[in-house]
Amino acid sequence: MLNMETLSLEQYSFIANSFSFGLAVMASTTLFLWLMRSSVAPGYRMAVTITGLVTAIAAYHYLQIMLSWDKAVDVTTGQVVATGEPFNQAYRYVDWLLTVPLLLVELILVMKLSQQETISKSLKLGGAAALMIILGYPGEVADSAGTRTLFWVLSMIPFLYILYSLVVGLKDSISKQPAAVKGLIHTATYLVIVSWLFYPIVYLFPLIGITGGSAIVAVEVGYTVADIVAKAVFGLVIFTIAVRKSEAEASK
Amino acid sequence: MLNMETLSLEQYSFIANSFSFGLAVMASTTLFLWLMRSSVAPGYRMAVTITGLVTAIAAYHYLQIMLSWDKAVDVTTGQVVATGEPFNQAYRYVDWLLTVPLLLVELILVMKLSQQETISKSLKLGGAAALMIILGYPGEVADSAGTRTLFWVLSMIPFLYILYSLVVGLKDSISKQPAAVKGLIHTATYLVIVSWLFYPIVYLFPLIGITGGSAIVAVEVGYTVADIVAKAVFGLVIFTIAVRKSEAEASK
Repeated sequence: MLNMETLSLEQYSFIANSFSFGLAVMASTTLFLWLMRSSVAPGYRMAVTITGLVTAIAAYHYLQIMLSWDKAVDVTTGQVVATGEPFNQAYRYVDWLLTVPLLLVELILVMKLSQQETISKSLKLGGAAALMIILGYPGEVADSAGTRTLFWVLSMIPFLYILYSLVVGLKDSISKQPAAVKGLIHTATYLVIVSWLFYPIVYLFPLIGITGGSAIVAVEVGYTVADIVAKAVFGLVIFTIAVRKSEAEASK
Repeated sequence: MLNMETLSLEQYSFIANSFSFGLAVMASTTLFLWLMRSSVAPGYRMAVTITGLVTAIAAYHYLQIMLSWDKAVDVTTGQVVATGEPFNQAYRYVDWLLTVPLLLVELILVMKLSQQETISKSLKLGGAAALMIILGYPGEVADSAGTRTLFWVLSMIPFLYILYSLVVGLKDSISKQPAAVKGLIHTATYLVIVSWLFYPIVYLFPLIGITGGSAIVAVEVGYTVADIVAKAVFGLVIFTIAVRKSEAEASK
């Protein structure tokens, strides 16, 4: 459980504003994707729908996170005073359990592989992603450094499998993509890798002695920025790929 | 932090009503734009979608501002008594960080330039707009006049770059627009310039000694009016341009 009273009022407000910013970004990205859905060819609408679903689920969880952050503290004295209501960090994990597998499904769908490949890759990568989140959670809520380390290591196994699959396993599929989008698909793949690398690093902060108010700011704002990159920015890249591929197919 | 107790009950209520007015204008403009979206040609739908997104994001932030304004004060004694809960002025900055770059993107999209020009102008102007907001914030929350002045000056650099780009840089692109909309595009450009000029002026109020209840009314109602002009009125002009250009292209 976070010790809220290590935060200054400025730090507390800055994190609150970053949660509200996250909510606004996720919700507006969702609306954009769903309103623009009809401008891609029917074959890419499932990819765009799921892309908007991911940001919609994230918007819901940012609302919950924002409300929980608000209830955990009383600031009417000009100081950060804990109300005793714990800030619920589990919302992030519930969000990731749903959205992280779907993010990989987005990428697979927009590549428009054969039906069989789409299903097998979605199950393998999506399953590995779910397993990664489930294995991370017991370590996140554990008090002992040993337990935290153990589950970090366990969670890294599916994580490395996903990275390997993205870099090596999708190589063949990427090479068959039209020239107009090859660069964008590489961008999408690297966005996943770079933004996802942030999470296991942040997870280790308490183990290496980074604690107190500034650490809470780094973790909460950092997760928010990583979520925005991994979901909203990534989603707009997926949308752009869908638009370009629709155009290329229409001009054939 | 605003000293709420310098406000009379009438001033406090007047500002509360102006926030509610802002919310109603932003939300209804959003609904109008999205409901009417199918009446413009497909090439202009992204411009109209983003125009509605800007007012939607503003509506969300006016709701937050209104709720924060309500929580900051207790009026049950017939007087304005601060509850200690600070009024969160940062919501305006979080809003601007998202909407101001998008406002420039609306204008660029409705001009329907080449794909390359659209991307390069959106990145340059949108990036400068985001930088302008980020540089303004430290001065807004600073207590010292020196810091406020410093960040005002820093923030004016991207602001002047944007004005210059709108007046000089877009001249060529505007001259290539169809005759039916040239006047409207000039109107849209001048709406941006005139409504945006309001913000750096208001920012200086505390420096030139304008404080107390009337100053808070001037700032909060002033920002609200400027937001309505810059987002809702501007958005309806963009929509009209999209309708006229769709008609002109259909009659070709």
